[in-house]
Amino acid sequence: MTASGANGSRTIGVAVLGMGNVGAEVVRIIGENADDLKSRVGAPVALRGVAVRDLSRPRKVSQDLLTDDPAALVARDDVDIVVELMGGIDPARELIRTALQNGKSVVTANKALLAEYTGELATAAADAKVDLYFEAAVAGAIPVVRPLMQSLAGDTVDRVAGIVNGTTNFILSEMAQTGADYAATLAEAGRLGYAEADPTADVEGYDAAAKAAILASIAFHTRVTAADVYRQGISSVTADDLVAAKKFDCTVKLLSICERVRGADGSERVSARVYPALIPLSHPLAAVNGAFNAVVVEAENAGRLMFYGQGAGGAPTASAVLGDMVMAARNKVHGGRGPLESTYASLPIASIDDVPTRYYISMKVADKAGVLAQVAGEFSKRSVSIAAVRQEGAGEDARLIVVTHRAPDRAQSECVAALEDLESVIKVSSVLRLEGTDD
Amino acid sequence: MTASGANGSRTIGVAVLGMGNVGAEVVRIIGENADDLKSRVGAPVALRGVAVRDLSRPRKVSQDLLTDDPAALVARDDVDIVVELMGGIDPARELIRTALQNGKSVVTANKALLAEYTGELATAAADAKVDLYFEAAVAGAIPVVRPLMQSLAGDTVDRVAGIVNGTTNFILSEMAQTGADYAATLAEAGRLGYAEADPTADVEGYDAAAKAAILASIAFHTRVTAADVYRQGISSVTADDLVAAKKFDCTVKLLSICERVRGADGSERVSARVYPALIPLSHPLAAVNGAFNAVVVEAENAGRLMFYGQGAGGAPTASAVLGDMVMAARNKVHGGRGPLESTYASLPIASIDDVPTRYYISMKVADKAGVLAQVAGEFSKRSVSIAAVRQEGAGEDARLIVVTHRAPDRAQSECVAALEDLESVIKVSSVLRLEGTDD
Repeated sequence: MTASGANGSRTIGVAVLGMGNVGAEVVRIIGENADDLKSRVGAPVALRGVAVRDLSRPRKVSQDLLTDDPAALVARDDVDIVVELMGGIDPARELIRTALQNGKSVVTANKALLAEYTGELATAAADAKVDLYFEAAVAGAIPVVRPLMQSLAGDTVDRVAGIVNGTTNFILSEMAQTGADYAATLAEAGRLGYAEADPTADVEGYDAAAKAAILASIAFHTRVTAADVYRQGISSVTADDLVAAKKFDCTVKLLSICERVRGADGSERVSARVYPALIPLSHPLAAVNGAFNAVVVEAENAGRLMFYGQGAGGAPTASAVLGDMVMAARNKVHGGRGPLESTYASLPIASIDDVPTRYYISMKVADKAGVLAQVAGEFSKRSVSIAAVRQEGAGEDARLIVVTHRAPDRAQSECVAALEDLESVIKVSSVLRLEGTDD
Repeated sequence: MTASGANGSRTIGVAVLGMGNVGAEVVRIIGENADDLKSRVGAPVALRGVAVRDLSRPRKVSQDLLTDDPAALVARDDVDIVVELMGGIDPARELIRTALQNGKSVVTANKALLAEYTGELATAAADAKVDLYFEAAVAGAIPVVRPLMQSLAGDTVDRVAGIVNGTTNFILSEMAQTGADYAATLAEAGRLGYAEADPTADVEGYDAAAKAAILASIAFHTRVTAADVYRQGISSVTADDLVAAKKFDCTVKLLSICERVRGADGSERVSARVYPALIPLSHPLAAVNGAFNAVVVEAENAGRLMFYGQGAGGAPTASAVLGDMVMAARNKVHGGRGPLESTYASLPIASIDDVPTRYYISMKVADKAGVLAQVAGEFSKRSVSIAAVRQEGAGEDARLIVVTHRAPDRAQSECVAALEDLESVIKVSSVLRLEGTDD
């Protein structure tokens, strides 16, 4: 099935699907590092072809390697490993499934696809006894998938919390630093190449939610899909929020949180959620700025671990892709396979309503006596205890900021709804959750 | 060769050698997490026995599992995996080699042994087609070995720099915070259980050097042993050094550094070295305090990655051991093996003399005109350029502090020797290197 190398040894054939930023870097490195790759794999690695959408665009690869027929490339007998970097659900899903069914190992960075269809694809990989690797799908160059899946295989993970979207982290870091508002900073991010023409997937948290689904699935040995992830983006975060956060010695970050929580009946559940949250400036994630990513893992025995690095970009993401490619190729040469999907725990998904959270609520209030008592009454009615209150401004600008202690999210959001109905509350101008505190 | 489980499926038998802090935690977790381990491995994991030196000491494990004959335990037919946590070279070396030769996979945290004999042991593992895993040998719970070996398998690592010894990091963090001197802080560390009764291996950098050898071997695909590592401990670091460091916006850390450097002829070499060094307070390693560990990896495509967590302690180290044990057990059940030792690059070791370093030199000088000119002359003679000078005190207490730019370490140390011979230099009181700067 596989072509033989010059000296009779096996050659590992690789097909790359997609030649955007990451694909171009993967192709470059396979060429430049051929000798190292050969030594590390134990056999030569040969690029069999690169599938692109537009054949006429000039590319830094020999023209005869290019094809606009990915299905034909994947079907070639001399392809052992398919590297899928085209993104999107279709046709990636079908191409990967076919590749796996035909005994080819697959390396992919496609988080949107994995967040929906890891189950289907992992089953195909297991049936065909081949590898499905996807380190690059979460946090770019940072090894997170492999440490969670392998290094922590003997531990019990309680929590994974990360900054895994570079676009939103760039925007929030800039807003914190410059005081500019969301719209202006998003436009700036676009000009600098940190935000796409249509930034929805990033700023509305879809990308972070897909990554949360992937991380939660691995950490809790449970199949979690994007639909299971509670999601809120950063488009309603204001310049005022960042100023207010600073007054509480906090900053605002878009977090992907995967947590083992207890249901009302005491049973274990998985909470996976994405939202912008205040975190204390002393928290390790607070110092992660710009396009950098970081993931904090808390496990019963390991304690708190942090992984930090570049979460996006062509070369960093290609590094993760190629690490997977080398491992898949080694397995082809030496036998054996990487870990399979592990879903034995099959924990139920917790509703955000039941997850204990803390809230930061900023509201415009009437400048008169008794407002605080009224507001506090709404919290106490719902057994939500208040951790801190700040009254600011006067007259037209009178503002009240409340930070609560931990309570079920439903109770917190019911407090917010009740505040909106209070006569003395003119407007609830901002609601954010608070994370990264012990109490 | 292996006993069958109740329902005919295979059981993976584990022998634990040594029941100190880490061994006791490994035994506890194997018992408590039996169900999870079974699901993750794909077969039950059974503890066959625990080898201890003193059978009479009370232990938290059934007495009939204890033995003082590790060789007999390792030789048992129903042992598939040997977890070696006794430490030291003998008899661990012989026990591990025999285990591997008899087809048992081995998990070890024994850095001193690995820093000398990885070659011999890895060869035995490769010959017998079994696993030799040692994530816990470097930086406790922090996944570093596996990310370097696997996640970065497609990248070119340029540098690994870490704080990998908790004892010395606790001492240096305390000295920085309290202003106390080395001897008093070491005594305090002993009282708090952060330093052993004989602290030599930690404070003189032997432990950090063993870990540097292990990291360098993996990062550069070259066999590096402890003898190849330039080593200097922290026992001569003074309270004054930490005060002076702060004035340069730096702190002092014991670093294990593995670096790809160029020889005089332009060829690549590996530098592995351990010494206390000034690093800028803005460097990510500067914030790693107390008994925590962190490792920064710089690779051509991935860029800078950082791994942070607990570098020692029973439960954290046990977490790393058990991750390896699960992977070794999975391979026994499903077939396949983890990566082999990779030494194809076989780069020569660079002498510290040829490695470009920066120096911080503090000296007592005569309080008279012309001293700085004399001192500067010695540097310029050897083509070492000065980055900063600070003159402090007067009369008896006149002191000169010089920080140099990068130059071969030999030239730097020759400058120090020349300064000691200068009439106007009363005493060179402190010499430390400076790391973590770009220039």
